[in-house]
Amino acid sequence: MHIVAVGGSDAGISAALRARELDPSAEVTVVVADAYPNFSICGIPYYISGEVGHWSNLAHRTHADLEDTGMRLRLDTLATGIDVDGRRLALRSSDGAETTLDYDELVIGTGALPIRPPIAGLDGLGAADGVHVLHSMGDTFALERSLERLQPSTALIVGAGYVGLEMAEGLSARGIAVTQVEMLPEVLPTVDPSLGALVHAELDRHGVTVHTGSTVTRVGRGAAGLQVDGTGPDGEPLAWDVDLVLVVVGVRPDTDLLVAAGARTGPRGAVVVDETMATGLPHVWAAGDCVVTHHRQLGVTYLPLGTTAHKQGRVAGENALGGRTRFTGSLGTQVVKVFDLVAARTGLREHEAVAAGFAPVSSTATPDDHKAYYPGAQPITIRITGDRDTGVLLGAQLVGPRGTETAKRVDTYATALFHGMTVDGFSELDLSYTPPLGSPWDATQMATQAWVREHLLPAQVLSPR
Amino acid sequence: MHIVAVGGSDAGISAALRARELDPSAEVTVVVADAYPNFSICGIPYYISGEVGHWSNLAHRTHADLEDTGMRLRLDTLATGIDVDGRRLALRSSDGAETTLDYDELVIGTGALPIRPPIAGLDGLGAADGVHVLHSMGDTFALERSLERLQPSTALIVGAGYVGLEMAEGLSARGIAVTQVEMLPEVLPTVDPSLGALVHAELDRHGVTVHTGSTVTRVGRGAAGLQVDGTGPDGEPLAWDVDLVLVVVGVRPDTDLLVAAGARTGPRGAVVVDETMATGLPHVWAAGDCVVTHHRQLGVTYLPLGTTAHKQGRVAGENALGGRTRFTGSLGTQVVKVFDLVAARTGLREHEAVAAGFAPVSSTATPDDHKAYYPGAQPITIRITGDRDTGVLLGAQLVGPRGTETAKRVDTYATALFHGMTVDGFSELDLSYTPPLGSPWDATQMATQAWVREHLLPAQVLSPR
Repeated sequence: MHIVAVGGSDAGISAALRARELDPSAEVTVVVADAYPNFSICGIPYYISGEVGHWSNLAHRTHADLEDTGMRLRLDTLATGIDVDGRRLALRSSDGAETTLDYDELVIGTGALPIRPPIAGLDGLGAADGVHVLHSMGDTFALERSLERLQPSTALIVGAGYVGLEMAEGLSARGIAVTQVEMLPEVLPTVDPSLGALVHAELDRHGVTVHTGSTVTRVGRGAAGLQVDGTGPDGEPLAWDVDLVLVVVGVRPDTDLLVAAGARTGPRGAVVVDETMATGLPHVWAAGDCVVTHHRQLGVTYLPLGTTAHKQGRVAGENALGGRTRFTGSLGTQVVKVFDLVAARTGLREHEAVAAGFAPVSSTATPDDHKAYYPGAQPITIRITGDRDTGVLLGAQLVGPRGTETAKRVDTYATALFHGMTVDGFSELDLSYTPPLGSPWDATQMATQAWVREHLLPAQVLSPR
Repeated sequence: MHIVAVGGSDAGISAALRARELDPSAEVTVVVADAYPNFSICGIPYYISGEVGHWSNLAHRTHADLEDTGMRLRLDTLATGIDVDGRRLALRSSDGAETTLDYDELVIGTGALPIRPPIAGLDGLGAADGVHVLHSMGDTFALERSLERLQPSTALIVGAGYVGLEMAEGLSARGIAVTQVEMLPEVLPTVDPSLGALVHAELDRHGVTVHTGSTVTRVGRGAAGLQVDGTGPDGEPLAWDVDLVLVVVGVRPDTDLLVAAGARTGPRGAVVVDETMATGLPHVWAAGDCVVTHHRQLGVTYLPLGTTAHKQGRVAGENALGGRTRFTGSLGTQVVKVFDLVAARTGLREHEAVAAGFAPVSSTATPDDHKAYYPGAQPITIRITGDRDTGVLLGAQLVGPRGTETAKRVDTYATALFHGMTVDGFSELDLSYTPPLGSPWDATQMATQAWVREHLLPAQVLSPR
């Protein structure tokens, strides 16, 4: 049995690790396009900020760790084609040499590519001009070289999603004055604007100049550095002179290899897989950012996340080996640290819930993270969304200061969502309490109780009795 | 409808709050033995330590807050008897006056009393001698007066459970040299000794002198202060001269009122209630530390906790009003901060699981709280117990430094236990990740995966396929 995984990031490596773990006799090869297998892409902002000593620390496992599991690595090797019937992969190494690799089962984890938005002038500029995208280790090294060479004092970031916000912090940590431009009305558009506004204020507090509801329309070389034009929320022209531009507006699935082999595509152009991670092409599995996401509440969507890629890769590796496991689905659980604030979400927001056929209503509460009499208590803003008709919990969004255990409080909601709990039933959970770290009803429960008071009480609680 | 609650702590107040919340027309009276309704008993160690400015801050709600809900409070009033057939409560106020109070529905939340262990000389000594128990606000004031009067430089604490450990920290914070004596082989006996040893080391690090496997046999007045005798783990005599003795070895249910009215008792002498919190006596409900605990894994036991008292009281208040809700059961979730360490548990340990008919096996892992490349990563010691035959998760114990979100990570396990998840299935949960605060597989999942590797893999994972 020879399992070949294409892709050295979360999905491909997870598949290979799982296959080796379950069957140490299985032959496993991972084909990696660059020289950086199993690197933590999510850690790049912390390398740029200077918090990670050496770039090699970003590896989840070293090359030696990986080979110690018994897998083989083919680095700097691009998979250029799949002969599905012949179960043979066409490869091209960095020196241009073409070879093939036979497989019994193939797992594709080619991941995603950074989106290049329609900004005039963008395609003519690159790293040499101080214009960057940021997705791979190659992008990271290019940015690091620009930072060394240009010693920029100003930077403009296009996009205020997770990576954009982390990079605003990372570049600020290097003493660079950051301007951030977000097309949508508020930063961190994956949470409701009322919570995004808290993150916006945190950016303001740390000296980031934020333009929301604004687009970047043109970028070009200026007298000194880069000249960027845009449009503000009321259509007014905006212009900036900066030393560096970073474009981080999301990713799109990298599907060329699979599509050429005959795979079907679905939402956002991602390759369709079922919950076993089968592509429909015989003996070809796929996982990670190149495939659609089975979401427990939304059905099939596209929601690329590292945590999901790990789970999908693990399922693909097990099934390639002959297992019959399934990816039980994403809830879109995410968290980001922005300076001293933590923002997290799991499940659905109202507009997503409406689209999925629910009748969502929401409440926001601001319970303290622990008893107020113990020093250091700080409020966490928690927004609960539930279904008005069934009382089922649909989602939770949290923004709290670092040190309020906000990142792991979202996990309690994620676990409750996994099991389809009602908002009212959430109070039945036996959660931990000690005054320095919680409350007899945890902050998470105070928030769900606020929802129940606003939307159910008293009629629906006592009426059926 | 007149609902009367007896007891001003978690259970009684929760019942009263719930009744008022659900039916603002209900007449609700709470009979409180002292003048301190709705005080946070769990906060006492932090008042003694000096971290809580004024004792009145320990109130979850002020007297005015409580009356604003529409409930009436009868303070300094002892309930001395229940006329079950006449639905009438006998009361004695602090001036000795005897009265009665008619009720339609009665909720008893008399709580617990501190256990006085069989130590020679103990019964003849009290607060005037610098010998204290610690359970009520009255006990707190008495201890505070002793601390002011005696200005002790040394103290001996009998017991190293939650309160004993918190008081070791609290008295240390006041500059008192603390000796702690625990009868069992390791401190914090509610977790396995291997984890208790980590807490023991933290006590050592902070200058607490710990004697485990040791008993205090006698206490008496010495030349200056108190003379305490004991026996060490090998039967050797121990002797201490100290200024203050604090006895905190647990509590027993305060059931006199209910037993005199004809209620049945069960484990540890607690009053038997069903899951609706009915005592079996007509129109008499009971909740909190005076009643048995329905445990989701163990059935009926006695496990007094403030979180449980809140839930039980809420159920009792709702049902007294005519509701039909049930207490869905405890998992014994607990957490304690000891200096800079946090220890938590939920569910069962092996010996408890064996007694409940399971086939438990355990694994210990020490995953980092977040990615090691981001500064400040620290290991959390996590011990997972699962059933070898069914793979069901039975319990989790965690010890981690403050700042590792250990207190809320136990909640993820508690939520998984609530839903009867398997150890292997825990990896399906979509938990949050960002490098400064987690890992793609959260630390909680790395620990369950370690259990699976040790006890299931590879045979049981792939075999049924």
